[in-house]
Amino acid sequence: MTLNALYEQISAKHSFLCVGLDPDVEKLPAHLKTHPEPLFAFNKAIIDATAAYAVAYKPNLAFFEASGATGWMQLEKTVAYIREHYPEILIIADAKRGDIGNTSKLYADAFFNHMNVDAVTLSPYMGRDTVAPFLQYKDKWAVLLALTSNPSATDFELIEEAGSGKKLYEKVIETSMQWGNPNNLMYVVGATQTTMLQGIRRIIPDHFLLVPGVGEQGGSLEEVARYGMNSQCGLLVNSSRGIIFADSSERFAEVAGQKAHELQQQMEKLLNK
Amino acid sequence: MTLNALYEQISAKHSFLCVGLDPDVEKLPAHLKTHPEPLFAFNKAIIDATAAYAVAYKPNLAFFEASGATGWMQLEKTVAYIREHYPEILIIADAKRGDIGNTSKLYADAFFNHMNVDAVTLSPYMGRDTVAPFLQYKDKWAVLLALTSNPSATDFELIEEAGSGKKLYEKVIETSMQWGNPNNLMYVVGATQTTMLQGIRRIIPDHFLLVPGVGEQGGSLEEVARYGMNSQCGLLVNSSRGIIFADSSERFAEVAGQKAHELQQQMEKLLNK
Repeated sequence: MTLNALYEQISAKHSFLCVGLDPDVEKLPAHLKTHPEPLFAFNKAIIDATAAYAVAYKPNLAFFEASGATGWMQLEKTVAYIREHYPEILIIADAKRGDIGNTSKLYADAFFNHMNVDAVTLSPYMGRDTVAPFLQYKDKWAVLLALTSNPSATDFELIEEAGSGKKLYEKVIETSMQWGNPNNLMYVVGATQTTMLQGIRRIIPDHFLLVPGVGEQGGSLEEVARYGMNSQCGLLVNSSRGIIFADSSERFAEVAGQKAHELQQQMEKLLNK
Repeated sequence: MTLNALYEQISAKHSFLCVGLDPDVEKLPAHLKTHPEPLFAFNKAIIDATAAYAVAYKPNLAFFEASGATGWMQLEKTVAYIREHYPEILIIADAKRGDIGNTSKLYADAFFNHMNVDAVTLSPYMGRDTVAPFLQYKDKWAVLLALTSNPSATDFELIEEAGSGKKLYEKVIETSMQWGNPNNLMYVVGATQTTMLQGIRRIIPDHFLLVPGVGEQGGSLEEVARYGMNSQCGLLVNSSRGIIFADSSERFAEVAGQKAHELQQQMEKLLNK
């Protein structure tokens, strides 16, 4: 998917919502637990209920790998289902991979060719060797961890470099932005760090930011929009638990749809500003 | 596996060899390419030929994920095969995962309970939240990326912190060593960086180091041993391509066994010093 196609979808749906597909087996509605493909059945219902309000889905691979090969198969079916029924929606494999050389090439091949997702989250620790193979694909995206929303983000991401005074996450952004461009590179920036969003926007005015941590982790959608939005929106705000596990009864999908709709309506107001 | 059990195995086999299982589909011997389970068939032959000389196997997940769910199944079969036939050998899932909270817990569960490997490689970028769930398991190991052997390791791993003058990889080691101990935490240190090995040993005299990059990437086994070995060996030196793809004929496993044996003999001399 191109940046323009993504922006067109945002404009058409009045939404910059990314729905995180984290099908935690232990949290699935009781009636699905005996289903032969519980993760896929759950995802399918969530997708059908939320697709009108979402511009992106972000399956988190851990929740599939936890079920081994059968989990991986349900991930593939989930991606194929979105592709078939909602081809306009961006699919981000939340894999946080970070390897090098041949291995990184293989990961890119696995995700972009074999599984056919649009984007993959990557960890920057090992440098350019991790990211470069993912930037070779037309209309595909590398989504690099920059400033995350978890408490221990402070352990290393905020380390200050001697001389420049720059934080590690700023170095990651400034260095990596030279490897790609706003058409093939996005960044993960946690919603709990809105004061730093302004500074990040100064460095990368045009790149899309994938923003987790709104809602359940305490981030504010209004602040994210105030400091992070650009002329092409430039934001994908992710919500996972707040939508997919809002209800655990047989009505779970209907409630998920309502929650996604509520977020979409808030986003529409912010887009109109 | 405990640190003592690992050391006993090293003493018994006179080896600190880790064989990297990177079954690249494109490099498999021609006669295996039509096999219904080519990755598993390849691994099984390699394992049987090298188990006498190796104390650890390190399947790299990218090479399995590249084949999707069927690849994942062959990874599970590979791990189960080692467990059944060579229960003394350490199994390291080279996954380089790095996530947080619930997701990290799930990864730990997937690898340690579901797949039953002994160790998992992790990326430190997001800090303690990534690593902590893996340290909760008895006789299991988190193997944290510290100083890697790839060219772009310099991009971020060597950034110097203001004030302390410490490099990022040193900060990663010094900070994370407080989260665990030599019984549940190892570090990845590339063999191409032997001059820095001395400094690393000063910080962590007792932790095991997983060392890739000997041979194919130019690292020297002698130098790694000189600067990295401690009283319980403290080293797992990995070789992948140099062993598993040393020959591409029907004799591939036999040649792999010879290559592993050669490395083991070099290691025996270094252990006797």
